[in-house]
Amino acid sequence: MSRFWSQIVSKLSPYVPGEQPKTEQLIKLNTNENPYPPSPKVLAALAQEASEQLRLYPDPNAESLKQTLADYHQLSPDQVFVGTGSDEVLAHTFQALLKQDKPLLYPEISYSFYPVYCGLYEVNAEKIPLNDKLEIDLEAYRIDNGGIIFPNPNAPTGQLLPLDQIRQLLEFNRKSVVVVDEAYIDFGGQSAASLVNDYPNLLVIQTFSKSRSLAGLRVGFALGHRDLIDGLERVKNSFNSYPLDRFAQAGAVAALHDQRYFEQSCQKIIDSRQWLQQQLENLGFNVLPSSANFLFVSHPEKDAEQISQSLREQSIIVRHFKQPAEISQYLRITVGTQQECEQLITCMKTL
Amino acid sequence: MSRFWSQIVSKLSPYVPGEQPKTEQLIKLNTNENPYPPSPKVLAALAQEASEQLRLYPDPNAESLKQTLADYHQLSPDQVFVGTGSDEVLAHTFQALLKQDKPLLYPEISYSFYPVYCGLYEVNAEKIPLNDKLEIDLEAYRIDNGGIIFPNPNAPTGQLLPLDQIRQLLEFNRKSVVVVDEAYIDFGGQSAASLVNDYPNLLVIQTFSKSRSLAGLRVGFALGHRDLIDGLERVKNSFNSYPLDRFAQAGAVAALHDQRYFEQSCQKIIDSRQWLQQQLENLGFNVLPSSANFLFVSHPEKDAEQISQSLREQSIIVRHFKQPAEISQYLRITVGTQQECEQLITCMKTL
Repeated sequence: MSRFWSQIVSKLSPYVPGEQPKTEQLIKLNTNENPYPPSPKVLAALAQEASEQLRLYPDPNAESLKQTLADYHQLSPDQVFVGTGSDEVLAHTFQALLKQDKPLLYPEISYSFYPVYCGLYEVNAEKIPLNDKLEIDLEAYRIDNGGIIFPNPNAPTGQLLPLDQIRQLLEFNRKSVVVVDEAYIDFGGQSAASLVNDYPNLLVIQTFSKSRSLAGLRVGFALGHRDLIDGLERVKNSFNSYPLDRFAQAGAVAALHDQRYFEQSCQKIIDSRQWLQQQLENLGFNVLPSSANFLFVSHPEKDAEQISQSLREQSIIVRHFKQPAEISQYLRITVGTQQECEQLITCMKTL
Repeated sequence: MSRFWSQIVSKLSPYVPGEQPKTEQLIKLNTNENPYPPSPKVLAALAQEASEQLRLYPDPNAESLKQTLADYHQLSPDQVFVGTGSDEVLAHTFQALLKQDKPLLYPEISYSFYPVYCGLYEVNAEKIPLNDKLEIDLEAYRIDNGGIIFPNPNAPTGQLLPLDQIRQLLEFNRKSVVVVDEAYIDFGGQSAASLVNDYPNLLVIQTFSKSRSLAGLRVGFALGHRDLIDGLERVKNSFNSYPLDRFAQAGAVAALHDQRYFEQSCQKIIDSRQWLQQQLENLGFNVLPSSANFLFVSHPEKDAEQISQSLREQSIIVRHFKQPAEISQYLRITVGTQQECEQLITCMKTL
């Protein structure tokens, strides 16, 4: 607390990201990074960018990247917004679209950055409980609201909503913006991007951090009606003209051009996820059905925090959330390489 | 205007950056980029980052970069804040420190992003006129205020305030934050970074975009008392955990390590600036004394916008601001390579 802070600062409860350990000896299954490297074509494109051109500003409108994303999702470039990771895209979305007189609705157990954004922009919000299977129940969102946001698949549960349920919500809820936060959609879900042309109040947010193996590059994007995108652009252009550096723009474009590598690497993770789920169930864990690159698991007899600590002693990091109470006995385990999954199971067996 | 926008969006007047032309045939003297490439050591460090590690998030706290900046400026890492270009650092500063009940003071003719940030965060502000030499007169800032911000050297005038005047302001003004925005300080000014340990309300902001030739990498930073930095960190961690990607962090560290290259490239620009000023004066231009990598010039007989258009027809872009009226007859000309400066003078002679 400082007398020089503006009023909002002392009220903030900042987000705490998962640990980024300094040692490389650890098996890192705590921040849902992709265990496979980016496409070699991406690395080649990035190496090209280490050039004299860096003295010049990047394209402030990231036109090449927007065009590539538009082509990929069969939309037009003015239906695409890009930012420094989906976190920056989300931040602008809360300020530009979700701050309304009526309350924003989001799942009580969900991405823990949502309440942080609400604090930063003083967004009035109402948390909607999950059902008793820890699923998002979209029926519960059919109440008066100033906006709706949920991840699909949800984090940290990994559970997926089918596209027809999202369409039903959009049919009912036409007066406020609905944001589908699809950070993990490529690991088995069906994107709501295909609904963008049908619903002017739908915004779909994705990232290159997970399925494209580019967490270190910080690129996220939103797809929606040009009026929604225009609102985001107005906030972005009042915040930072050039959020994406030359590497971020070039690497993301190259990633979209290597579809085969992308599909293969997603499939490997899906295969390992199925294997890991089976093994954990064999060890007595309850494993929620996951469509993400992580599993959300609990054990009827063992304390989650203790398991997490024991794994840590064996150089494996997983994520344990102490809050809220409903999930304090769960662990979120990122799906690593097949070898890392096998090492995890070997360790689990010794507990 | 869309019914889905939050209230603030329709009120915004976003910043308009200088043109980034697609063709490389142009001599680009409009956005104050450095005409010399980044240090070869920086390019080598950046090429190294095009690696498999990109699948992992960058260090959210940029500890290596903060330590390197702290060492460079003889401060400690908790006196350093980093962001995606100084624009992002400025945005967080307006929200975290400059939004107060009393008005923020800034120069009437100055970086045109300041009023945009005031719009975005609803900061109450009062513009202080320049004196009749288009200089910042810090005596005029000795009034009740909620914060003070000015660039040094000022943009787009290029004029420098000596450090003792800034110290005098800080002696007088102890109750509110004073931000010195030093984007262009390395081209002949003396940084207020040396005053950070003496004044807990001083924040100094710099960038790698200009003197380090890294506009394309998007790295800026702030130096100040740990309480001010903590306020910025709280906002940053409520906005985006990982604003700086792996390239930005590694490239900035490498740039700070090549002091000799940095000094040589600044000196070349200073030399060309002096030559260009003399030549323009020979052609009848009024040239404000500049300590930046640009000149702010007017001609008693020729219309600024017409000169700008004529230069454009000869493939040279300079920056003309139509607003405010006091500077509508001025052009801001970035100091290019010596060869570019010579081409500019050749063109000017034909007008």
